[in-house]
Amino acid sequence: MTWIALKSRVLAHNDTIAERLRARLRGKGTVCLNIIGSPGSGKTTLLEAVLPRLAERFRCGVVEGDVATDNDMRRIVALGIPAVQIETGGSCHLTAESVERALGDLAGGLDLLVIENVGNLICTVAYDLGEDHRIVVVSIAEGEDKPLKYPAAFVSTHTVAVTKTDLEPYVDARVEIMVRNALSCNPGLRIFPLSARTGEGVGAFAEYIAGKLANR
Amino acid sequence: MTWIALKSRVLAHNDTIAERLRARLRGKGTVCLNIIGSPGSGKTTLLEAVLPRLAERFRCGVVEGDVATDNDMRRIVALGIPAVQIETGGSCHLTAESVERALGDLAGGLDLLVIENVGNLICTVAYDLGEDHRIVVVSIAEGEDKPLKYPAAFVSTHTVAVTKTDLEPYVDARVEIMVRNALSCNPGLRIFPLSARTGEGVGAFAEYIAGKLANR
Repeated sequence: MTWIALKSRVLAHNDTIAERLRARLRGKGTVCLNIIGSPGSGKTTLLEAVLPRLAERFRCGVVEGDVATDNDMRRIVALGIPAVQIETGGSCHLTAESVERALGDLAGGLDLLVIENVGNLICTVAYDLGEDHRIVVVSIAEGEDKPLKYPAAFVSTHTVAVTKTDLEPYVDARVEIMVRNALSCNPGLRIFPLSARTGEGVGAFAEYIAGKLANR
Repeated sequence: MTWIALKSRVLAHNDTIAERLRARLRGKGTVCLNIIGSPGSGKTTLLEAVLPRLAERFRCGVVEGDVATDNDMRRIVALGIPAVQIETGGSCHLTAESVERALGDLAGGLDLLVIENVGNLICTVAYDLGEDHRIVVVSIAEGEDKPLKYPAAFVSTHTVAVTKTDLEPYVDARVEIMVRNALSCNPGLRIFPLSARTGEGVGAFAEYIAGKLANR
């Protein structure tokens, strides 16, 4: 079998499990998010800013995917929000199967399940994790050209968080141009510039997620 | 054949070509660097800062690897340094075969060949590109924990550039702690904190590369 044929089979197998997982979560009234972004784009920090607001109204849970360490899981648990860790042991993305296995009892009574994927703006894109919504996270410190250089992630989603906007004065990149570049990949995007550090834009993003939960 | 067996065969095939490429480059007296880092870690900006210094003394050339666009290649060519682009069309890493094919005449009379890999801190690590030296680039804006979370890259190299140190006052990460975390993965690392924006540390890094060229 060729590499491409095998990869197609792996992806088809993943899609089957993802559909089963999505049906199971929807059956329980759980909305599922899949958070994708580069290492250091600010995925966990965004969750630390947003989840306490959402947890006031909704039962939230998190699956943390990492190549190594359970640091991120411990950051979420420190907020009083249940979280489980998937350490991929070198693998560059989560699979629906790994999420299904990790969920265990976590998905029992949740309104919102957030899956934070491995830090990778390429390989994560092809794997459906059974999510209802995918959110791509990109920091302004990565440079305004990143949507053009990694378009597949931006095409695969409806929602982008442009993080670390407080760094804009100190880097050679403009949020406005990054937003324009993302829209040139995918004109249908909802884009949320925000700074988890200053709190600017976090409320609007949290309300957007709350709206997804209200419209279940 | 299983996924793992096929991946082993792909890597063995890559290693064979990498050895051939390394022998060919060494035979011509060319030192080859493979630059690895996340999207937006500052790989191209580092080359823009360092290569003009090296080009005063050495014949330099660059292979740029990107999922999409030839933006980075054009940034290098604008410096008057020859560069060729590999657009991987979705693939998450370069292979020795893709580099060998792209090189064409570029490697003819070079003292230094720099390969800038695709922005990916995971998948690039397993692929030997025939380099003499691998350089891992990580920006302080990515967070001081990144060596712990993506250890394979830091274990696979002798040299790390910690970039964007000018952002340290504005982010919740300390260069000193990132250096300590990298050394905990691999105590043998040479680590160069630097800022391509202010120029701080760039000279020391350039001299380190020049030293590799002098000791050919």
